[in-house]
Amino acid sequence: MAESDEHLTGGEAAALLWHAVEGQGVTAAEGFSAAGVACGIKGSGADDLAVVFSDRVAAAAGVFTTNMFKAAPVLLSQQRVASGRAQAVVINSGNANACTGEQGRRDAEEMADFTAAILGIDRELSLVASTGHIGHPLPMDAVRQGIRDACAALSPSGGPQAARAIMTTDTRPKELALEMELDGKTVSLGGMVKGAAMIRPGLATMICLITTDAAIGARELDLDLRWAVDRSFNCITVDGDMSTNDTVIALANGASGAQVLKEDERRKFQRALDFVAARLARAIVADGEGASKVIQVHVSGMPEYEQARRIAMAIANSPLVKTALYGCDPNWGRVLAAAGAAGVEFDPGQADLTLAGIPVVGAGAPLPFDEAKAHEALKANEALVHLDLHGGPQSATVWTCDLTEDYVRLNAHYST
Amino acid sequence: MAESDEHLTGGEAAALLWHAVEGQGVTAAEGFSAAGVACGIKGSGADDLAVVFSDRVAAAAGVFTTNMFKAAPVLLSQQRVASGRAQAVVINSGNANACTGEQGRRDAEEMADFTAAILGIDRELSLVASTGHIGHPLPMDAVRQGIRDACAALSPSGGPQAARAIMTTDTRPKELALEMELDGKTVSLGGMVKGAAMIRPGLATMICLITTDAAIGARELDLDLRWAVDRSFNCITVDGDMSTNDTVIALANGASGAQVLKEDERRKFQRALDFVAARLARAIVADGEGASKVIQVHVSGMPEYEQARRIAMAIANSPLVKTALYGCDPNWGRVLAAAGAAGVEFDPGQADLTLAGIPVVGAGAPLPFDEAKAHEALKANEALVHLDLHGGPQSATVWTCDLTEDYVRLNAHYST
Repeated sequence: MAESDEHLTGGEAAALLWHAVEGQGVTAAEGFSAAGVACGIKGSGADDLAVVFSDRVAAAAGVFTTNMFKAAPVLLSQQRVASGRAQAVVINSGNANACTGEQGRRDAEEMADFTAAILGIDRELSLVASTGHIGHPLPMDAVRQGIRDACAALSPSGGPQAARAIMTTDTRPKELALEMELDGKTVSLGGMVKGAAMIRPGLATMICLITTDAAIGARELDLDLRWAVDRSFNCITVDGDMSTNDTVIALANGASGAQVLKEDERRKFQRALDFVAARLARAIVADGEGASKVIQVHVSGMPEYEQARRIAMAIANSPLVKTALYGCDPNWGRVLAAAGAAGVEFDPGQADLTLAGIPVVGAGAPLPFDEAKAHEALKANEALVHLDLHGGPQSATVWTCDLTEDYVRLNAHYST
Repeated sequence: MAESDEHLTGGEAAALLWHAVEGQGVTAAEGFSAAGVACGIKGSGADDLAVVFSDRVAAAAGVFTTNMFKAAPVLLSQQRVASGRAQAVVINSGNANACTGEQGRRDAEEMADFTAAILGIDRELSLVASTGHIGHPLPMDAVRQGIRDACAALSPSGGPQAARAIMTTDTRPKELALEMELDGKTVSLGGMVKGAAMIRPGLATMICLITTDAAIGARELDLDLRWAVDRSFNCITVDGDMSTNDTVIALANGASGAQVLKEDERRKFQRALDFVAARLARAIVADGEGASKVIQVHVSGMPEYEQARRIAMAIANSPLVKTALYGCDPNWGRVLAAAGAAGVEFDPGQADLTLAGIPVVGAGAPLPFDEAKAHEALKANEALVHLDLHGGPQSATVWTCDLTEDYVRLNAHYST
């Protein structure tokens, strides 16, 4: 689907706290350099390897897939990031290095260690991520050449190039950067992400790298990242499938000199991190396979956040809801049926539902509404579904995309 | 999809225990009569109301949707069946009487009680089920006329007519009957079902009625029915959506004189009930919206049945698996990724996977296999996915159908 840049950089009230840095991502923050190169992992000749480097050791945090079949790079990075320190990340696309056994583990380790050796850093400070086909060994000669080339090409303006090199079936690179005042200094926070579904022939998916030159402890960065991920990447779904490679890594190198220590600085940093994570997460959905529109599902009025999120996720994962909204059909019965099947207790007689802002259900019963007008309203780029259950103070927002014939076509008609 | 009758009546080893009664369903058992009529609930003029009657009070058991938005007929039948006794069931299609508030509750009660009055039975012995559009009041004048007509037309050979009258987007009626020896007497067990997804414009779905002339206590019937439903209707998924109206009712009127008391009689009865429920459940999947084939997912080697079922269900609900099998693509990476995301612990290094009987993964790592041959094998009417995790004695089987462009088309391009 078409999506304006406005969605990734735009402001709202957030503009009062920070402003966007146009055309930048992971290298917006001071001390970070990056590069993306083509080394031949992809048959197409497109860019397929990126290196991101901090000129000093950064505080590091990571959140990884909970899939039982974790890819080799996930297992290695998970282990290394536990130290709370990192300085380089090497990422390839075109091959997920997943379900590749002992060879895969050796390859992931060599990929990270070879990068560290060239950059002259401790191997334990080098992280790795892979995305692409499942079940094929990495072409390590190509990978080594790519790492040599990328390390030689590292540049403080290389972020956009790196964002391109991690794409698989993504139709466009997805990155974002902000500047804000913290601790009396100018701090940058930027990120890049790839992912458009669990994707074609077993491509294994979502990878996000966020960088900042703020100084923050590894434990605090880890807490902030988990909070942000829970409200961004854990609140999107393209098809309900969870990949073997999902990885979100945050690096904070302190190069701005700004210390994120005081309560209000922490809060501002968290809000900025939430914003970057949410925008990058939403960008994945907007680029979802076959998607014609973004669907925002907002569930309010529950006692607990997790209950609201679970109901919203049940609505967002319903193929019947997703096909209805593709057809711009204000089919509220499907929304209620999906919500009621979420496995969460609530009073159905309290349910208020709006579609594209139009009230269609009040106190659990249908309201008269202009169906032609609702059909028109649902033609917008983003369809809003708001279910209020009037049972408590918590709410959750989940983003998904619609389900179209193109999704089926893209995923069925690949022939091995 | 095309499906031969063989699937509904066929035998396997089961033929040793019973034999099929061709062209029969809920009226195969002695003492049951039924009718199906057109009363104008559906705009098309197709049959839309069925009554099934037992000439004596039957032991009764019911299993209903756990959706929070339960339809009015579900709430009424759930309450009445708790007595363990029933004698009549009235079912309409074309209107689900769901999300219809206080009016809906009154209409469901009137539907059941009007049927009881005509049949001259206690109103508490009359059950009701509805399927069709959500959120519209029942046209009660039409319903009353339909009940009058159906009660006047009740016949011991009316089962097939009733099976047709409960269809919505189903492409064919689905029924089945068996005969077997129990307690030295000939016992019949038959059933009918409707459902092809949670279905078009909020149609609200699955309704199953099973009848037998065996004599069995209401408590025992309830236990047996719950066991059978857990391994049949709870093991199918078309699109992961749960309806507001799902209802399974079993009636045992004892007219055969056969008492199901002894341990081995109980076991035989349970096996026959399991068989009928599983075949009816599988018939729903085979008639799934837009389906081109049935997918059988068998997960073995887990410590607990529920764990195996959960993994099988995660595979069966994965749009990526369903689209791959639609394309006859032996994309084993998607199967492993879906299994690993089921939220169940297992050792990924033990996983063996076969697709259409062809080993593709051994001990968690890819096996070399002939992809063209696998592609051909997956063109069969039923695609078999077998994942063995070698972690325990329990296994589960789940049936689903593939995800095609037709599913999207059927569900998107209805315009309200």
